[in-house]
Amino acid sequence: MNMLQNIRIVLINTSHPGNIGSAARAMKTMGFTDLVLVDPLDFTPGTPNEQADAMASGATDVLHGAKVVQTLEQAVEDVAVVLGTSARSRHLPWPLMHPRQAAGKVMEVLANKEGLCDQKVALVFGRERTGLTNEELAQCQVHIHIPTNEEYSSLNVASAVQVLGYEVRMAILAHQGKLDADYSGQWGVEWDNELANQGEINGFIQHLEQTLVDIEFLDPNNPKQLMPRLRRLFQRAMPDKVEINILRGILKMIGKSRS
Amino acid sequence: MNMLQNIRIVLINTSHPGNIGSAARAMKTMGFTDLVLVDPLDFTPGTPNEQADAMASGATDVLHGAKVVQTLEQAVEDVAVVLGTSARSRHLPWPLMHPRQAAGKVMEVLANKEGLCDQKVALVFGRERTGLTNEELAQCQVHIHIPTNEEYSSLNVASAVQVLGYEVRMAILAHQGKLDADYSGQWGVEWDNELANQGEINGFIQHLEQTLVDIEFLDPNNPKQLMPRLRRLFQRAMPDKVEINILRGILKMIGKSRS
Repeated sequence: MNMLQNIRIVLINTSHPGNIGSAARAMKTMGFTDLVLVDPLDFTPGTPNEQADAMASGATDVLHGAKVVQTLEQAVEDVAVVLGTSARSRHLPWPLMHPRQAAGKVMEVLANKEGLCDQKVALVFGRERTGLTNEELAQCQVHIHIPTNEEYSSLNVASAVQVLGYEVRMAILAHQGKLDADYSGQWGVEWDNELANQGEINGFIQHLEQTLVDIEFLDPNNPKQLMPRLRRLFQRAMPDKVEINILRGILKMIGKSRS
Repeated sequence: MNMLQNIRIVLINTSHPGNIGSAARAMKTMGFTDLVLVDPLDFTPGTPNEQADAMASGATDVLHGAKVVQTLEQAVEDVAVVLGTSARSRHLPWPLMHPRQAAGKVMEVLANKEGLCDQKVALVFGRERTGLTNEELAQCQVHIHIPTNEEYSSLNVASAVQVLGYEVRMAILAHQGKLDADYSGQWGVEWDNELANQGEINGFIQHLEQTLVDIEFLDPNNPKQLMPRLRRLFQRAMPDKVEINILRGILKMIGKSRS
């Protein structure tokens, strides 16, 4: 998945090395590896940092591969499109997107129909307390706002990386047709038995109805909505062939136990 | 946003109190408050826990309001639909959804057309290392898998809460029409000046073309694609009225400086 390599995560002036480690972990779970740190407050590349390593868990490769620069300009020099995370809009209004819209924008750049597929995209995250400055936001083509709780919008920086990274990954997987292939929505892809066909389901429903009459649970002269409700229930459950056989086996035993 | 109150987050056998705190923070940023802990390993309700409080940051109200129970059955007793997070499918296949599909399922329950809007939904998260057991997964109607990097799928439990919570929040906001209202996609909602109309843009483009001829940048006998390219650039930028006035002011000054 080459597209993942063209996503750069930029963290500006991060205070806590643990947050850099957590961000590296979040990146790696989503398949991203290109991490650039702009003037981190307490992190020196090449020098072991216990807190950062602990939070990175199995993503120390991403953490140790991080590039450290002094300015945002340096961090995005080779980048085509820069998207910056922001609290709600500042003094000068700016194109504001939620993460899903931003992921769509990222895909426009990555999957450019002219085949310009080596264009890089940067997602920029600001300081823990104060975010990005107005000067830094002015260097971003798009501002992204995660629609947080109005009364508590204090998203951890690694959590913001996780949410944005997730949206971009989802967009890439959808573009590559992998979401459809891996998630059938209703049912797992590796269902172990073939689903029952409607003939088998109807056979079971008839058998069930007869049994319910036999045990005097269903009055054929006053059936009400019992059978339609039971049919709906079993249709919704989408039974497979083995399950239908089990159910018919149960009905058969009910019959035997009464004779 | 009443629907948010019907979402319960259930954490099973969490080892690290810091993760419980981080999960509370993730919940609160997404507007959720109902936290149930099933047999946490190192957390006693009512007893101050430094690590959990530190990671909860401003969400200690959610953390301290958490209910502690002994089993998953107790945690979901009053819940209509239980969704469990899972690594890829286990021995017995199960309906498997990605978080966006799961959020759609949650909305089906929350926004039930019969008006059964007090139905609760639980999102269940397993142990840090081993996730949910097969017995616990069997109590879930739906299994959710976050489509992580195949080579590194080690998502922190609070990060998983953040991603799932984000998807459910996005679904609720979309249902309530709030996403459309708050994010125009291309441009911020509070754009400070009215966009220029096409007449104003055309007037500027003509002015620009004349200026480029005057300064002998554009050869009217061999114009090539210069003007179409410049027009496309300015159309894409969607200038507002003030910006067009600034641009025409510049052109006017170029003219004056030459006379």
